[in-house]
Amino acid sequence: MKLLPRLSRVLPILGWAPLYSRDQLASDLTAAVIVTIMLIPQSLAYAMLAGLPPQVGLYASILPLVFYALFGTSRALAVGPVAVISLMTAAAVSRIAEPGTIGYVETATALAVLSGVFLIGMSALRLGFLANFLSHPVISGFITASGILIAVSQLGTIFGIKAGGHTLVEQLDGLVSQMGETNVPTLVIGALSVAFLYFVRLRLKSVLIALGMGKRLADVITKAGPVLAVTATTIAAAGLALEDKGVKIVGTVPVGLPGLQLPIPSLGLVAELGLAAALLSLIGFVESVSVAQTLAAKRRQRIDPNQELAALGAANIGSAMSGGYPVTGGFARSVVNYDAGAETPAAGAFTAVGIAVATLFLTPYLYFLPKATLAATIIVAVLSLVDFGAIRRTWIYSKGDFAAMAATILITLLSGVENGVAAGVVLSVVILLYRSSNPHTAIVGLVPGTEHFRNVNRHKVVTSPSLLTLRVDESLYFANARFLEDRIYDLVAANPALRHVVLMCPAINAIDASALESLEAINDRLKDSGVTFHLSEVKGPVMDRLKRSHFLGALTGKVYLSQYQAVLDLAPRMTKEDEALEEGAGI
Amino acid sequence: MKLLPRLSRVLPILGWAPLYSRDQLASDLTAAVIVTIMLIPQSLAYAMLAGLPPQVGLYASILPLVFYALFGTSRALAVGPVAVISLMTAAAVSRIAEPGTIGYVETATALAVLSGVFLIGMSALRLGFLANFLSHPVISGFITASGILIAVSQLGTIFGIKAGGHTLVEQLDGLVSQMGETNVPTLVIGALSVAFLYFVRLRLKSVLIALGMGKRLADVITKAGPVLAVTATTIAAAGLALEDKGVKIVGTVPVGLPGLQLPIPSLGLVAELGLAAALLSLIGFVESVSVAQTLAAKRRQRIDPNQELAALGAANIGSAMSGGYPVTGGFARSVVNYDAGAETPAAGAFTAVGIAVATLFLTPYLYFLPKATLAATIIVAVLSLVDFGAIRRTWIYSKGDFAAMAATILITLLSGVENGVAAGVVLSVVILLYRSSNPHTAIVGLVPGTEHFRNVNRHKVVTSPSLLTLRVDESLYFANARFLEDRIYDLVAANPALRHVVLMCPAINAIDASALESLEAINDRLKDSGVTFHLSEVKGPVMDRLKRSHFLGALTGKVYLSQYQAVLDLAPRMTKEDEALEEGAGI
Repeated sequence: MKLLPRLSRVLPILGWAPLYSRDQLASDLTAAVIVTIMLIPQSLAYAMLAGLPPQVGLYASILPLVFYALFGTSRALAVGPVAVISLMTAAAVSRIAEPGTIGYVETATALAVLSGVFLIGMSALRLGFLANFLSHPVISGFITASGILIAVSQLGTIFGIKAGGHTLVEQLDGLVSQMGETNVPTLVIGALSVAFLYFVRLRLKSVLIALGMGKRLADVITKAGPVLAVTATTIAAAGLALEDKGVKIVGTVPVGLPGLQLPIPSLGLVAELGLAAALLSLIGFVESVSVAQTLAAKRRQRIDPNQELAALGAANIGSAMSGGYPVTGGFARSVVNYDAGAETPAAGAFTAVGIAVATLFLTPYLYFLPKATLAATIIVAVLSLVDFGAIRRTWIYSKGDFAAMAATILITLLSGVENGVAAGVVLSVVILLYRSSNPHTAIVGLVPGTEHFRNVNRHKVVTSPSLLTLRVDESLYFANARFLEDRIYDLVAANPALRHVVLMCPAINAIDASALESLEAINDRLKDSGVTFHLSEVKGPVMDRLKRSHFLGALTGKVYLSQYQAVLDLAPRMTKEDEALEEGAGI
Repeated sequence: MKLLPRLSRVLPILGWAPLYSRDQLASDLTAAVIVTIMLIPQSLAYAMLAGLPPQVGLYASILPLVFYALFGTSRALAVGPVAVISLMTAAAVSRIAEPGTIGYVETATALAVLSGVFLIGMSALRLGFLANFLSHPVISGFITASGILIAVSQLGTIFGIKAGGHTLVEQLDGLVSQMGETNVPTLVIGALSVAFLYFVRLRLKSVLIALGMGKRLADVITKAGPVLAVTATTIAAAGLALEDKGVKIVGTVPVGLPGLQLPIPSLGLVAELGLAAALLSLIGFVESVSVAQTLAAKRRQRIDPNQELAALGAANIGSAMSGGYPVTGGFARSVVNYDAGAETPAAGAFTAVGIAVATLFLTPYLYFLPKATLAATIIVAVLSLVDFGAIRRTWIYSKGDFAAMAATILITLLSGVENGVAAGVVLSVVILLYRSSNPHTAIVGLVPGTEHFRNVNRHKVVTSPSLLTLRVDESLYFANARFLEDRIYDLVAANPALRHVVLMCPAINAIDASALESLEAINDRLKDSGVTFHLSEVKGPVMDRLKRSHFLGALTGKVYLSQYQAVLDLAPRMTKEDEALEEGAGI
């Protein structure tokens, strides 16, 4: 009986499937129908964004959902192709292969394999914490910039011109130089689709409800907006023979499901795609976990981030097996899945069935679908990613975070999505190092008439010229050990009358080997200057560890249980109120 | 008058030169003579270690010392070629050029230029904190492994055989396969030199003092040990015509000082050497600053790490200008300089004059110097770098730090010095992220009869099933923001009776934009689960910043000045001792 709980950590389906009820089945089926309707046009559109044939988007929306249902811990997350990952796929793959070739599709599939292996490896090594490489402002800036790049990249298709480019400058350059070639029927379809989809997104639901429709039905119809646009423009393109007027249509989409195989990328391809796969996987993971956590919290459920890594890895391997490209958990579709009542990951499996049926039977009807319609669905979808409010809020809250965000946005827009996210990672780590290397410290003195010690810069306290007490408000480890040394040497050099230095440790939860060496160095160097070094208020676990080192034996001073005892011992005059004139030794 | 203090930050010489006294001159001259005697054989030997002609070591010991005297803030630091940097130079340069060619020397000089530019750039951008990339155990492991690699690399020269290799396996392989070619006269000279130098280092001083010699003179003679070995073996090699018996000698060393020029490396070379220059500069900086701080503390002086970056950068540029190779502050020679009484950086400038004189007049006498003698001086010098005690101490103190150290040692030994230090940097950052992502937190309860709150796992405290208080003992920022979210969601999912969550913030010194978003997400998600979210004991500066965000407006609960007030408001029964039966809600 102990096996099942352990197994169900790796295969969460074992936790919920045995208890699956008829009610849950009904809820999951309803959700699956709604998500399927939403996912079909999205899959086609995001495949186009990635530079891939439309059916690849459908392939990437079948097996990944089944695998996630087996391994995932979120009950509502809907995986599949998403906008930012599609853009990153296009950037990585087009460095290696020409869009429109078989090699391009194969490279995208290889990228999914690598992404899957990377995610599963991170899960096996419990490296989920590496996602902390990415700070929120950096991610938010990256997503905003990606949204802009994606939207602008689709403008060419809306205008019926050929304009590409991986940076904003290249894109705008292409758009402006080609503007004369605009195809008017395409522009009409594209512009009408954008307008319609915006209307659907912003107003349709309230209009329908005002007209007396039930809230639930209004909701479903609203979600079906893109399907309506696809259907209407496909019929228009077929009926008016728009292809002959220069409107680009999807054309022949292969009928049937893809064959199953797992392509093993060559070592050369691994070297070329490795970094891109890692960055793309990290971004995908961070986004997916954040959606999953939001939805799980609503029902007081929990997700296991480490198991999520494995599940998303499996989903990517599944995508590659069926000729798809990198996938992750999508925000909009997961929310729809949740709102539509999905109760278990089975909803995802049912959605997969829905997409499979569509792939088998609907693809012939996609022949006349104008590409401009797909571009319109992308534009309307990604503009919700662009969050200028977050930029403003970050500016108001913290200039340092704003600088990191602005740099990420600029580098992404001007130098492309891969450099953007790489710069974001580096910036996040540099900020972390900078912050860690400057812990908060305070020189403290005695509050007269009490046994309390407070910052000399903020309070009226008593100090002594021969005794200096430094409180460090952070654990000591290698990132701030050098700072502590510098700080103490500077203080000793600036105070010739000093005889005792006390390090007050109530906020120090840990001292690592680097910091221990620094404390030893401080002790030795203070000894050379004729100053004794003491500690006070050391926490129990920290003290236990220090006892395993030679430090306490070499310490020139003592370890005091309380700072007040240290003062009684080292500078007793400080405690006598009538002599509290030494106040503020000017440190 | 305000200009001088500012200028003297950039040119510290302006701070001490105007006050230079006759006494200081005498002290500095004495120190310079002793350091010169020590530095001549070291310079020759380390140049050989770097794969360079011996005179390059002398060139690297002239201008760098002058430039450091102008810009450096340490009064006793002695810069010049050092063992580990010489080894790293050999590893980097031999990837690009063949040892023994002019191209090899030019590449080493280019490396010095890049290192200088890198260090000055770090100083200008105030990026000295990047040295925190390297934790002490990682540096210590790297130095130990480098010491072993260096010592083994010199064994071939001691045996008079040709054995190279950048990893321990390659080196041992070469030694074993060539052992049959051992040149006995070379081995005799090498072994005797090693034995003599060990005797000098460990015993000579006490022997001389026991014989009645003054301590000061005994000290100087001990420092001159390598010069004695060099002189004796040179005379032996000349007198016994050992060259004809297969003993490798230094041969012709060009007479005179090098011409001055500053070679600008090509962009291709910059790309090939850039990373190596950065790693080598970081290692050199960390070692140099640690020596400088140790010595400065003994006299209650201070050094400015940022200005040290500039000074070491200038020293490297100086080295390159005079045909030298990368330099940094050396441990042994700085201690000698200090012990010999150096009072100002002028001692370094005088040492430079000494080396220049030696370069002008002594080089002809180096013709017969056996290379095995130089190898012996290297071996005896670097074995003091190997610190097995540090490995044992780290193992006892912290298994995590030990793992990082062991990995660095193994990678350095088995894969070479560049991969070793790169792995060290990566490991340090990963450890930092891991530590940062797991801040210490505690669920706290009320100590009965008091207003104090303590960890429920360590103390007998009162809790309530409807109220959960989490204390976080660290500032909140992006590296631990996700952890906080996970922790709170897990707790909420595990405690169905929960109505209120209080985040107790007395140890939180800062909340960055990422953590703010996490707090907002926690607030929203708890709201969805019907739980209100409160803060308590928020510090003033943190509160000021929170007021600039929308968070406080959206907060479902309150911000309490004290945790006790929070309990009085949210779970007043906890404060009544007679009802203190709810103790330990099993969380």
